[in-house]
Amino acid sequence: MKFYQKEIQLEPFNRGFHLITRIILNQFEEIGNIEVGQLQVFIKHTSASLTINENADSSVRTDFENYFNRIVPDNNDYFTHTLEGTDDMPAHIKASVLSSSIQIPITNGKLNLGTWQGIFLCEHRNYGGSRRLVLTAFGI
Amino acid sequence: MKFYQKEIQLEPFNRGFHLITRIILNQFEEIGNIEVGQLQVFIKHTSASLTINENADSSVRTDFENYFNRIVPDNNDYFTHTLEGTDDMPAHIKASVLSSSIQIPITNGKLNLGTWQGIFLCEHRNYGGSRRLVLTAFGI
Amino acid sequence: MKFYQKEIQLEPFNRGFHLITRIILNQFEEIGNIEVGQLQVFIKHTSASLTINENADSSVRTDFENYFNRIVPDNNDYFTHTLEGTDDMPAHIKASVLSSSIQIPITNGKLNLGTWQGIFLCEHRNYGGSRRLVLTAFGI
Repeated sequence: MKFYQKEIQLEPFNRGFHLITRIILNQFEEIGNIEVGQLQVFIKHTSASLTINENADSSVRTDFENYFNRIVPDNNDYFTHTLEGTDDMPAHIKASVLSSSIQIPITNGKLNLGTWQGIFLCEHRNYGGSRRLVLTAFGI
Repeated sequence: MKFYQKEIQLEPFNRGFHLITRIILNQFEEIGNIEVGQLQVFIKHTSASLTINENADSSVRTDFENYFNRIVPDNNDYFTHTLEGTDDMPAHIKASVLSSSIQIPITNGKLNLGTWQGIFLCEHRNYGGSRRLVLTAFGI
Repeated sequence: MKFYQKEIQLEPFNRGFHLITRIILNQFEEIGNIEVGQLQVFIKHTSASLTINENADSSVRTDFENYFNRIVPDNNDYFTHTLEGTDDMPAHIKASVLSSSIQIPITNGKLNLGTWQGIFLCEHRNYGGSRRLVLTAFGI
């Protein structure tokens, strides 16, 4: 049984959806030691999130941002948690609709993703700053 | 390799979002035996769910309840699964938009959550009753 | 420690929500060898997804389809990722609102699901074709 864990800090991203598969792979080479297993990527924040989606066409990520801004608008008049700005409460909701954690199978030392799948960092704040991830990989 | 599992029953909660981090930690001290690993919390129901979000200001949880009631209203006229009450089908949808399972990394015997992260029990029914959770922790 | 992994291919499903618990159990008997553990089901696509919800009344699955079609309509005029058809970008969003991965505890060689819980394959495309799943089970 192998168990690896590493905490990494991302550069600040603009509000929106960003492909970070390569960043994670580059910083966590231990995945290559696992024949059969799983990777968990966990984000230690409540106003940014993680999801898996299309890795090819950046228009998907643009449409994600526009869709989620419409479905959870800033300036919702019934929100009461408004002290940290109009983008804060919507960010919390988006973070829970998407997720704080993704799990990906590992096969033969590689992430067993579909051809078109990539890992998105979803930055829901206007100025979210640097985000921390916990990477955990385990298997045999 | 360490592997612990425990099934627990929660007291009934009112419809809404409730912080249960402390309840889980108190009932699953085995987490303290794990240096590097993962906790899964799984809810054995389809009309209540789990998510990770802000643990400090209860207004976040109030706004969650109001948001999800608007986005998945009771009394949606096109719902056909209505036998168990108008709050039942919306509860099923909310449960899938949020999640039946959360995964949190364990580091040095503790949940490696961000400062502001807590575990929410999301009770989507008016009278959901007592809910059962399966807690599974593993690692080295 | 036991670690099993298998990749399976599903027959094509119509657009909509489909119960696949039995298909997974039939193709992954190794679950029976695990006393305490976890199953991960991962879908290698970005326009179909997985969730856990009610396994009894098919009206739940019908209402899911109708709900998600309203909340993420085809023909959204501001979508820019439209080359693959009007059902494609909505499919990507639904896939992230639901999930590409589910995790279920294993207890005494069986999935420790609640009485009413089943695994849904959520096919968001009109003609999604055959979908690939990676099944990973581990435990002691």
